[in-house]
Amino acid sequence: MNEKIYELAEIIDEDLKKNNLSDTSRQECVESLKKLIPEGSVAIAQINPTSGDVRGNAKKALRWVEWAERLGLDAIIFPELYLLGYPIGDFVDRFPVVVEENIEWLKALASCTKNTKVIIGFAEFNKNKVGKKYYNSVAVLNNGKIENVVRKTLLPNYAEFNDYRHFESSPVNSKDRIVSVGKSKAGIVVCEDGWNDFDFFEKNLYSVDPVEVLVKERHPDYLINCSASVTRAKKEQLKHNMLSFSAKKHKTPIVYVNQVGSSDCLSFEGASRVYDENGDLIYRAKSYEEQFFIVNANDKQGKIYPLPKGLEKTLTEQKAFSLDHEPDLERTYLSVLQSIRDYFSKNGFKRAVLGLSGGLDSTVSAVLLADAIGAENVFGISMPSSITSTESKNDAKELARNLGINFAEIPIKDMFDTAKSELNNAFSKIEKSWNCRFKESFTNDNIQARSRAMILWGVANEFQSCLPIATSDKSELYMGYATINGDMSGGFAPLADISKTKLFALARWLNKNRKTKNAIPESVIKKRPGAELAINPKTGKPLLAEEALMPYEFLDEVIWRVENLQQSITDMLEVEFLYEIHMKEQREPVSQEQKLKWLQKFFKRMSTALYKWTLMPPAPIVDARSVNKSEYNQPVVSSKINYKKTSFEEKLEDLKSKYV
Amino acid sequence: MNEKIYELAEIIDEDLKKNNLSDTSRQECVESLKKLIPEGSVAIAQINPTSGDVRGNAKKALRWVEWAERLGLDAIIFPELYLLGYPIGDFVDRFPVVVEENIEWLKALASCTKNTKVIIGFAEFNKNKVGKKYYNSVAVLNNGKIENVVRKTLLPNYAEFNDYRHFESSPVNSKDRIVSVGKSKAGIVVCEDGWNDFDFFEKNLYSVDPVEVLVKERHPDYLINCSASVTRAKKEQLKHNMLSFSAKKHKTPIVYVNQVGSSDCLSFEGASRVYDENGDLIYRAKSYEEQFFIVNANDKQGKIYPLPKGLEKTLTEQKAFSLDHEPDLERTYLSVLQSIRDYFSKNGFKRAVLGLSGGLDSTVSAVLLADAIGAENVFGISMPSSITSTESKNDAKELARNLGINFAEIPIKDMFDTAKSELNNAFSKIEKSWNCRFKESFTNDNIQARSRAMILWGVANEFQSCLPIATSDKSELYMGYATINGDMSGGFAPLADISKTKLFALARWLNKNRKTKNAIPESVIKKRPGAELAINPKTGKPLLAEEALMPYEFLDEVIWRVENLQQSITDMLEVEFLYEIHMKEQREPVSQEQKLKWLQKFFKRMSTALYKWTLMPPAPIVDARSVNKSEYNQPVVSSKINYKKTSFEEKLEDLKSKYV
Repeated sequence: MNEKIYELAEIIDEDLKKNNLSDTSRQECVESLKKLIPEGSVAIAQINPTSGDVRGNAKKALRWVEWAERLGLDAIIFPELYLLGYPIGDFVDRFPVVVEENIEWLKALASCTKNTKVIIGFAEFNKNKVGKKYYNSVAVLNNGKIENVVRKTLLPNYAEFNDYRHFESSPVNSKDRIVSVGKSKAGIVVCEDGWNDFDFFEKNLYSVDPVEVLVKERHPDYLINCSASVTRAKKEQLKHNMLSFSAKKHKTPIVYVNQVGSSDCLSFEGASRVYDENGDLIYRAKSYEEQFFIVNANDKQGKIYPLPKGLEKTLTEQKAFSLDHEPDLERTYLSVLQSIRDYFSKNGFKRAVLGLSGGLDSTVSAVLLADAIGAENVFGISMPSSITSTESKNDAKELARNLGINFAEIPIKDMFDTAKSELNNAFSKIEKSWNCRFKESFTNDNIQARSRAMILWGVANEFQSCLPIATSDKSELYMGYATINGDMSGGFAPLADISKTKLFALARWLNKNRKTKNAIPESVIKKRPGAELAINPKTGKPLLAEEALMPYEFLDEVIWRVENLQQSITDMLEVEFLYEIHMKEQREPVSQEQKLKWLQKFFKRMSTALYKWTLMPPAPIVDARSVNKSEYNQPVVSSKINYKKTSFEEKLEDLKSKYV
Repeated sequence: MNEKIYELAEIIDEDLKKNNLSDTSRQECVESLKKLIPEGSVAIAQINPTSGDVRGNAKKALRWVEWAERLGLDAIIFPELYLLGYPIGDFVDRFPVVVEENIEWLKALASCTKNTKVIIGFAEFNKNKVGKKYYNSVAVLNNGKIENVVRKTLLPNYAEFNDYRHFESSPVNSKDRIVSVGKSKAGIVVCEDGWNDFDFFEKNLYSVDPVEVLVKERHPDYLINCSASVTRAKKEQLKHNMLSFSAKKHKTPIVYVNQVGSSDCLSFEGASRVYDENGDLIYRAKSYEEQFFIVNANDKQGKIYPLPKGLEKTLTEQKAFSLDHEPDLERTYLSVLQSIRDYFSKNGFKRAVLGLSGGLDSTVSAVLLADAIGAENVFGISMPSSITSTESKNDAKELARNLGINFAEIPIKDMFDTAKSELNNAFSKIEKSWNCRFKESFTNDNIQARSRAMILWGVANEFQSCLPIATSDKSELYMGYATINGDMSGGFAPLADISKTKLFALARWLNKNRKTKNAIPESVIKKRPGAELAINPKTGKPLLAEEALMPYEFLDEVIWRVENLQQSITDMLEVEFLYEIHMKEQREPVSQEQKLKWLQKFFKRMSTALYKWTLMPPAPIVDARSVNKSEYNQPVVSSKINYKKTSFEEKLEDLKSKYV
């Protein structure tokens, strides 16, 4: 394809975003493009829907359709469930009116179509006596009518996926999946339908491969996959390998259409693409951007936009835990950025307020917010207590200056003192009845964190469209090292799926790769993390997080092993951790006792942190697995799980000592 | 069966709870019972497992098994997934060690069995190349061995159920489902397997009925259903009708074994039972209590313990919204009580602290807590502000006295004043950059609510095993009429699924039915609800909730219609509400404009409340449907859903006016 097509198409993207094109410019653009686009081309609508906003999604779709029509393209292809706006949660169950309306809007949209076929995801009622309420379907619209409907067969129900909750699985029905597109015969599959190749996967979730059936029975010229596939660490590599394998195996090109944008906790990266019949990638759209992407399955000279830097490289290599987070940082940055941007814009928020402690978490949060919603819309508030060091205060101020965000210093001393004295008054009354007062406790630490949150929520109440930000990171959430109604509290938590060692790497990466270099003061990155809420009696200095927990390098590897390898304490005792290797090199080897202690501490703290997880605000999922509510749930009462194996003999003995 | 069996069996229940029986008394009990129990009897283990505590569950099971063995019963039957402890959330996916361990504990348990067969739920690995990781299975243990394994076929995945996430569906395999129990041939099904009769249901979720297949192919003498079935408004009636229908249709008795107890948000009511081949109920265990329940499918003179008062009656009648909540109040009370009790005991909490405002929510919460964990373990704190009326303060005090709970009054004036002045200081700094400060706002109201929550969380931090309680009710949660980090905040929210009109009824019911009558001051019930956070400028008095929202009678019917009938605004405009009938009678009819305004207000407020729902602590589910996270999820960004239908013509016009 002529490279010029993509330059010109940028005008279309701009117009779709801003509706800024005059009729004349539009006409010019159309004429230039029409000369360049080869016969048999189609548009991939790499588009950002809003969950539940059927009207808005339909109106937006029509503008994309009209562009495809103007250019005389054979078809324009939208993502899975586009009209409802993926993900749908459970609203289709509670509010069938949304599904009724999505069908009516589909009909209205169909009545506006002409020669360009519109291939678009929607939800359909299942009218049979047996099965779930709906089908996850794709409609083909043409010449004012709904020409054809394809129903999804494979319904994922793991991690963030919940298709099987509301949708009935359809038999493959290969005949219905065939649609003529120009002179070609295309075969349609819907997302997961394309993810069950028996030769590619070692284990398969489902007993049928719709792609195999469709190709064998109908021999389509190419396959179309309408998807809504989220970004996850390691997923791009898998996706690429699988789609390439499938295209090659079936000697059939694949046009893979993905949605873009974020919805609450899920981030879709776009990067729609085409593989030819040899499994070679011949087209790839932009990542993390809407794009009207013109492709042609018969023209191998396609445009391949680069993936975020390093993405592909990482993922084959990262089969073991590594402190080299670099290869995944650009993806991490872009997907959190998109999540913040879409959470704010889709919910009508404009401003963010956060506490700036001078520590790593609030610092990185501030940078991400400034980049996502604009520095002028971010207010950083330094809220020092008597424990806060001058260095921390200065770091906060310097950061704000470097970022150009708004800044104020509001000491919490008075609030803290009043609350503390009020509470002490309460405690002395209470201890007359309850003889179980702690001598030492986190009470005072927490009053500080909660006073700060009270200020942030107050600002959010008082200023229009303003959301307070929770700055907790993933390592701390696993440890429950976060204060309820304190630093854990906010309307959105950008860092909740980023571990501490990765956050350090991200801070350095931001300093190097943002337009404004070194916005993050070096001292913030060099400082060892600590909440500055309490004094360590041993050192007389503010308690460091690693003193209260365990070395972050060790902690993050435990998390990585839990999420990626599903390992138990027993498994982890048998392998050498990166931290152990490092300490051995420094001639301070970690003993097995120490390792076991840390592992037990990890799982004990995690078990008591379970209820904190239930209280976390929405947060972007970034890693391969997370503790985000929208993909992982663990009952709070499951705190007695034993994460270490015991032998059969120990069990027998335990059973004989009968009473628990 | 001889009534005396059940008197004697109470000794067993007591022993299983407290391990308080001497060897001699045990021997006596065994001998007396053995004379009375007819041949062919089995025990239903109506037992309360702890989610994830495989060791504890196994050890507990053995004690029950030993009693069955002592009595020479043919079998003892445990609930579904007993060893893992239902519900399992996603921990089996992340921690396969739990499943490995449940298999090892099963083997250890098997090695302790003798002549009494043990039929018990556990999870099994699926070792095939295709399918999900596990099977939801039931093992038959006998003479030291695992004799047989039955795998569940139908995997529910709606509301609180998530079976399909982790389990592979097994073909019915009727042969494997047959187990000889004494001289009988029993056929085993697992929970949902028994809920797909094609003649009973108008619509069916699955295409196979395992009961039908099993009965037709193997002609068992009776069926055993191992279940974990939660209590829900209206569910008992459905369950009874269905099981009765199924037994009669297949001319086969059904022994239905249910678990009891609560896990986070789910409450299981027990009430295990037996139906004979005519569909007649011949045995029913207690509700909301563990019970070693001896039954005999061939002896029709069984023991039928009563259900909580009125339960059965309600549910056939309640096909329309009614303000007569009475028939469901005992069940509501018992299931919330059990939820509180188990949440506390399974998590190791002992004490609760809550704010006592003198309002309905905190009052009812206090009563439920006192009854669930003991008055001495509850601390009620009155935290008056300048708006709080003397009456409210006195009501709080009187309630505490009546309940015998601990009480203190801690005015929040100083905290409020300091926070307010600190915040005003912050606001004036911020408004220099952000020209969007609200003239009037909820800021001050929220500072009050948050100061109170700060005190409660402080108490929870300072005193051992103490949990603060969130008192928000269901009507207010739908309206987002609750303060984040304020009254919405706590470790558990007992009322989150009880609507306001039902709460009033529950308060009256508690006054009438508790041992101590009229513990709730009449003035609390008579008072019209209001948070006493702000003054209504029109009346000069504290703002009433109904002034800020809409009449509770109307609001609760909207909620009821959404949850039970899945109605849209359009549907609701077409029916007459109870409130409309009442107002007509009072000659103050509600206009359609007013009704539409309230409906639109409802959905608008609900849409902006979605993000508050994500922050709610665990809370018992009581109604047929709820907004509890463990059964309902709606993306926060889906706030633009249109809950009112528009016509096709309006849609076409809307599409033509192209730009959103």
